[in-house]
Amino acid sequence: MNSGIERFSLNQQTIRQWSLPELVAGCTAAGVRYVGLWREPVRAYGLRAAARLVREAGLAVSSLCRGGFLTAADPAERIAAVDDNRAAIEEAAVLGTGTLVLVCGGLPPGSRDLSGARERIADALGELAPYAAAHGVRLAVEPLHPLFASDRSVVSTLRQALDLAERFPAERVGVVVDAYHLWWDDTVAGQLARAGRGGRIAALQLADWITPLPEGALLGRGQLGDGSVDLRWFRERADAAGYTGPVEVEIFSPALWARDGAGVLAEVLERYRTHVL
Amino acid sequence: MNSGIERFSLNQQTIRQWSLPELVAGCTAAGVRYVGLWREPVRAYGLRAAARLVREAGLAVSSLCRGGFLTAADPAERIAAVDDNRAAIEEAAVLGTGTLVLVCGGLPPGSRDLSGARERIADALGELAPYAAAHGVRLAVEPLHPLFASDRSVVSTLRQALDLAERFPAERVGVVVDAYHLWWDDTVAGQLARAGRGGRIAALQLADWITPLPEGALLGRGQLGDGSVDLRWFRERADAAGYTGPVEVEIFSPALWARDGAGVLAEVLERYRTHVL
Repeated sequence: MNSGIERFSLNQQTIRQWSLPELVAGCTAAGVRYVGLWREPVRAYGLRAAARLVREAGLAVSSLCRGGFLTAADPAERIAAVDDNRAAIEEAAVLGTGTLVLVCGGLPPGSRDLSGARERIADALGELAPYAAAHGVRLAVEPLHPLFASDRSVVSTLRQALDLAERFPAERVGVVVDAYHLWWDDTVAGQLARAGRGGRIAALQLADWITPLPEGALLGRGQLGDGSVDLRWFRERADAAGYTGPVEVEIFSPALWARDGAGVLAEVLERYRTHVL
Repeated sequence: MNSGIERFSLNQQTIRQWSLPELVAGCTAAGVRYVGLWREPVRAYGLRAAARLVREAGLAVSSLCRGGFLTAADPAERIAAVDDNRAAIEEAAVLGTGTLVLVCGGLPPGSRDLSGARERIADALGELAPYAAAHGVRLAVEPLHPLFASDRSVVSTLRQALDLAERFPAERVGVVVDAYHLWWDDTVAGQLARAGRGGRIAALQLADWITPLPEGALLGRGQLGDGSVDLRWFRERADAAGYTGPVEVEIFSPALWARDGAGVLAEVLERYRTHVL
């Protein structure tokens, strides 16, 4: 029953109606070996208790979401952001994951200076990468779809993410390949190969692209197979580039959140077998 | 009073509460010399009557929106789309504009094949370009923001638009540079220079990027100066690349449509002076 899902990881936002114990029990029952966690529910449950719960169930944490938001121009805000990322690094270490996902941040209020914002991200990575390495954690820069360029991430393409990451050693800064954010880009095949050559792929995430987008655009991701993304292509290209890590399904969808969690997981696994393997 | 707005063009969608006679009267009263027109309101008024109305008021038509939607895989749909584009070319010629804006089309239902869709666009351009040239009209490929890749345009970047356009002579196929669609892309400066060198810039359009996006994303454009786009940068770069044509303001905004048209135009012109000139 469980063949083929050895690399599958369930990002907890996909079934956020589940508490952490429900997530652990549900994944264990379904034969899932990896979970992707988010800081807020982990802290609400208690960091060390969460780490113990997951570890004792035999699950591994594929990634922790999320650090980042490193584009503030205001010095006090910048210091606060770097401090918060240090805390995220520590949390990742306690949870036993080597991957901290970074959503790097949009434009500060009133700013139109994209390249300045990107440079501030690079500066912050330089400050954080040694701290992360000392904790056995790699910073994973996630390019977000260009629709989020103003408010969530001025890093919009895999090329931009690699341009940032490659300023640092590969074991310190990698990239997240999320098919939802990158599917539209006809340069992504070449950039995936580049990422693989450099050992930069820290995580592979999947969700499908469906329209119409809801207000605010964030919570409009589709179940695997329901949309426009050739998900298998991404998995195959990442594999061909040498990526052997978990394949994390991260879907933000109120339609999925309104359903029974076990039913959602069964459907996600069936779609994973059909559209990803 | 009118200095500085010699190149300004009002796309009629910006004040779509105006009828065509109101648009012509409003623009004339404000000293505006160009209008960008859409096929549907022009046909509702009557093509030849609209052409006469605009011409007799001394206005020039900067562009006609829009042809395109050339990605259908179904042969009958494809023939219908090419026929419709031939009609759009004829309408552009009657209106006296040399620029037909093409929104090239998204993925056909159920398809995930972006490159196949892009090739079908190229095929259709090959079929349409001679017909357009015979009518004194240039096809203008508009790259749309990647958020529209699945349902409106698989051409998402200026590079992709130029890759398509450059398969044909520059006087037959150009590109539309719309800051709203391209602002997030850090390769756009180089592509603007490329477009200018090749004489490919057929139109320059402006709107600002604001969030949150509304449901469906289409009608969420911002008034000039209200958002994240460095509009002056786009105008200056286009100028530096040799573009001397109209600068068209095209904002889809229910907030602007709910207001008095003359007041909107006055505000747009004031913002244009502040943020574009």
